[in-house]
Amino acid sequence: MQDLDVIVKNGTILTMDPENRLLEGGVVGVKDDTIKIVGQMDQEKITGKKVIDADGGIVLPGLINGHTHAAMSLFRGLADDLPLMDWLNNYIFPVESRMDADFVHAGTLLACAEMILSGTTTFCDMYLFEDEVAKAARKAEMRCLVGEVLYDFDSPNYGTIENGFEYSESLINKWKDDPLVSIAVEPHSLFTCSPDLLQKANELALKYNVPLITHLAETVNELNDIKERYGRTPVEHLQALDLLGSHLIADHCVHLLEEEIEVLAQEGVKAIHNPESNMKLASGIAPIPEMLHKGMIIGLGTDGCASNNNLDLFTEMDMAAKLHKLNNMDTTVMDATTVLRMATIEGAKALGMESMTGSLEEGKKADIIVVDIKKPHLTPMYNPYSHLVYAARGNDVVHTMINGKLVMEDRKLLDLELEEILEKAREKSRDVLRWLSDSGVKGG
Amino acid sequence: MQDLDVIVKNGTILTMDPENRLLEGGVVGVKDDTIKIVGQMDQEKITGKKVIDADGGIVLPGLINGHTHAAMSLFRGLADDLPLMDWLNNYIFPVESRMDADFVHAGTLLACAEMILSGTTTFCDMYLFEDEVAKAARKAEMRCLVGEVLYDFDSPNYGTIENGFEYSESLINKWKDDPLVSIAVEPHSLFTCSPDLLQKANELALKYNVPLITHLAETVNELNDIKERYGRTPVEHLQALDLLGSHLIADHCVHLLEEEIEVLAQEGVKAIHNPESNMKLASGIAPIPEMLHKGMIIGLGTDGCASNNNLDLFTEMDMAAKLHKLNNMDTTVMDATTVLRMATIEGAKALGMESMTGSLEEGKKADIIVVDIKKPHLTPMYNPYSHLVYAARGNDVVHTMINGKLVMEDRKLLDLELEEILEKAREKSRDVLRWLSDSGVKGG
Repeated sequence: MQDLDVIVKNGTILTMDPENRLLEGGVVGVKDDTIKIVGQMDQEKITGKKVIDADGGIVLPGLINGHTHAAMSLFRGLADDLPLMDWLNNYIFPVESRMDADFVHAGTLLACAEMILSGTTTFCDMYLFEDEVAKAARKAEMRCLVGEVLYDFDSPNYGTIENGFEYSESLINKWKDDPLVSIAVEPHSLFTCSPDLLQKANELALKYNVPLITHLAETVNELNDIKERYGRTPVEHLQALDLLGSHLIADHCVHLLEEEIEVLAQEGVKAIHNPESNMKLASGIAPIPEMLHKGMIIGLGTDGCASNNNLDLFTEMDMAAKLHKLNNMDTTVMDATTVLRMATIEGAKALGMESMTGSLEEGKKADIIVVDIKKPHLTPMYNPYSHLVYAARGNDVVHTMINGKLVMEDRKLLDLELEEILEKAREKSRDVLRWLSDSGVKGG
Repeated sequence: MQDLDVIVKNGTILTMDPENRLLEGGVVGVKDDTIKIVGQMDQEKITGKKVIDADGGIVLPGLINGHTHAAMSLFRGLADDLPLMDWLNNYIFPVESRMDADFVHAGTLLACAEMILSGTTTFCDMYLFEDEVAKAARKAEMRCLVGEVLYDFDSPNYGTIENGFEYSESLINKWKDDPLVSIAVEPHSLFTCSPDLLQKANELALKYNVPLITHLAETVNELNDIKERYGRTPVEHLQALDLLGSHLIADHCVHLLEEEIEVLAQEGVKAIHNPESNMKLASGIAPIPEMLHKGMIIGLGTDGCASNNNLDLFTEMDMAAKLHKLNNMDTTVMDATTVLRMATIEGAKALGMESMTGSLEEGKKADIIVVDIKKPHLTPMYNPYSHLVYAARGNDVVHTMINGKLVMEDRKLLDLELEEILEKAREKSRDVLRWLSDSGVKGG
């Protein structure tokens, strides 16, 4: 038996592997950053320098948040229940125009703390000052795919779009050998990016073989706007610009025609579903069952905290499962296993990270979480998939390991100074209120 | 200053009173079972035998679960994602036919533990063996409104319906002076109860001046069934039987016509909204904003754990707020304050318990919870209402007081033996699997 650094034992292991194996009382063995053993075996015969006792709980791959704007954690609850344009124009935009690197760093660290505490081990981010996002993720030891948001306006980070492309390229070069951070090219949306911007972004993504990520068909307004400007639907617009392909990750995908789903599926475009945000912003319901039926790969995301308002993928799974049952008036749609796969292995595939993470398989990086089930709301346990999707919440996760390193044990963050992060966030919130007051709006 | 037993201080107090007052750094003072003081005052000048330091958190009235079947906690995750009739006929009904008093007692205690741990202090129950439900609630020191389910079939508890009425009447008499337990008369639904049963149930409720509770217009099947049998919609059927009135609490109310909402509002009928269950069972969306607009009083419920699958009113609030924004394509619908009122004071009004609970006001019984906000997902705090509805989850509640008695402190249950309750629940789950196996179905 090889020399292992960590073994996780005494749990029900949901591998999320191609056979979707469930191993009662199985063992996961980790050496360095890698999973070496996954199986049912005599637990007495296997030893590691560190033993994590799952205590009868559920052991599964870390969850993957396929779409968020992490630093918006600092806007959580700032302005809810408002008309979308009021929210954007009077709250989000005025504040974002004043943001700086330190603000994004503080907000991202806060988000990382929340994500680790709720069992998320990988996130995909789109925002400003993404070098700070990468640095914060590195500090938190989280896996991530990040990219600077690109649009036609000047940015408080990079200034003009020319600099935006340079900044994006520098991110790609800077982080290319990092074990945790990957970079994408991220034009914001079809309605905030000119065709020229979109095509240049695509060229950059293809040049470096990194994902291209954009918001797609999120709202009816976007649909109308793109039709009016270009005489095309959003998907037709992307197609006309030759941007469709397996390198494209499309966030939201709420308003799609059946034939557009067909096109996206054929082109190998990946999608990220954000049900809570789509509900809270009254955007609509993405046709996820139809997209799955056509063979699209779909991950799950929380979107930013301003439109959710948390980063808890457990409640996101719950919402996803229930929303589509309701929308299809069919209780069998989006069963628990399908939804849990979206939050794990399918999310990894969507981000192009399935060789690293998303399932518990030998050779993959060790991104592992343990869920405590010795609680009234998780007792008795007939079906662990059902428990995770319909009954559990993020704070039922007790241990979180990323890339072979334990980052939370018994709900204690091991590498982050939580008190300091919370205090910094409070400080930044006072800045936010001051900025809003300067711009003539009273927040909160 | 009067001699107080308990004071809660150093928190943001959401009174949920008629003015919806928010008191930063306020104090709640309790003597015996009653709230004596709610206000902003010099915290040094007020003392009590016991001081609860809210530590900057949110202090609010305990949440009210307006509709559940508590003992179904023992079926959580037993069978999900199945067609409704398959679920009922092959899982729920075969198991319920084998249930006994001990089973219901164990399941209700499990549910009470979960509810207290997630900040619910009052629940309204409909199930079998309700004397056991009342006893379990009493043991857990929870406030409740309970009633034996009545229907045309024989019951494993009371046998024939004649005995069912006797049993209901005996419950009313037995518990009539109890400080925590109230009794209702609860015919199951219009499709499982004959007109005669419904009218007799109504007479019994009126005789004792207790609420009449039934499921109403939950599914399209029910709608079609009642139309076919009686040539009326469910609301018309109730009206024809002269059952409408301010004593009637109608659970679900998913499929209502506009003119029916008008009738229900005029008659003073109360409703309980159960969004998660209605989504998971693909029942539909209750027209809550329209019902509120017509002036109906509406509480919030989780329904049973088999169709939710937890009793967490925080996630229920989140779902309610988001579902109706989506359904109305309007972000301003069901704002956080409206939804939090549904889970507190409006829920109390719906159950006819507003003189006792639902808000923090002098003279009301002391049902109080404290939410810890020193966590990443609740930092910073711009708006406590938004935090509670959109970001918090049940396990953010740290202290729960019911009727002046602290039942949870620092997340520890003070009166319930949690280990014993969980072990008993596991035992009962083995019975459930055996019963299913006997009936030819493999559960889980």
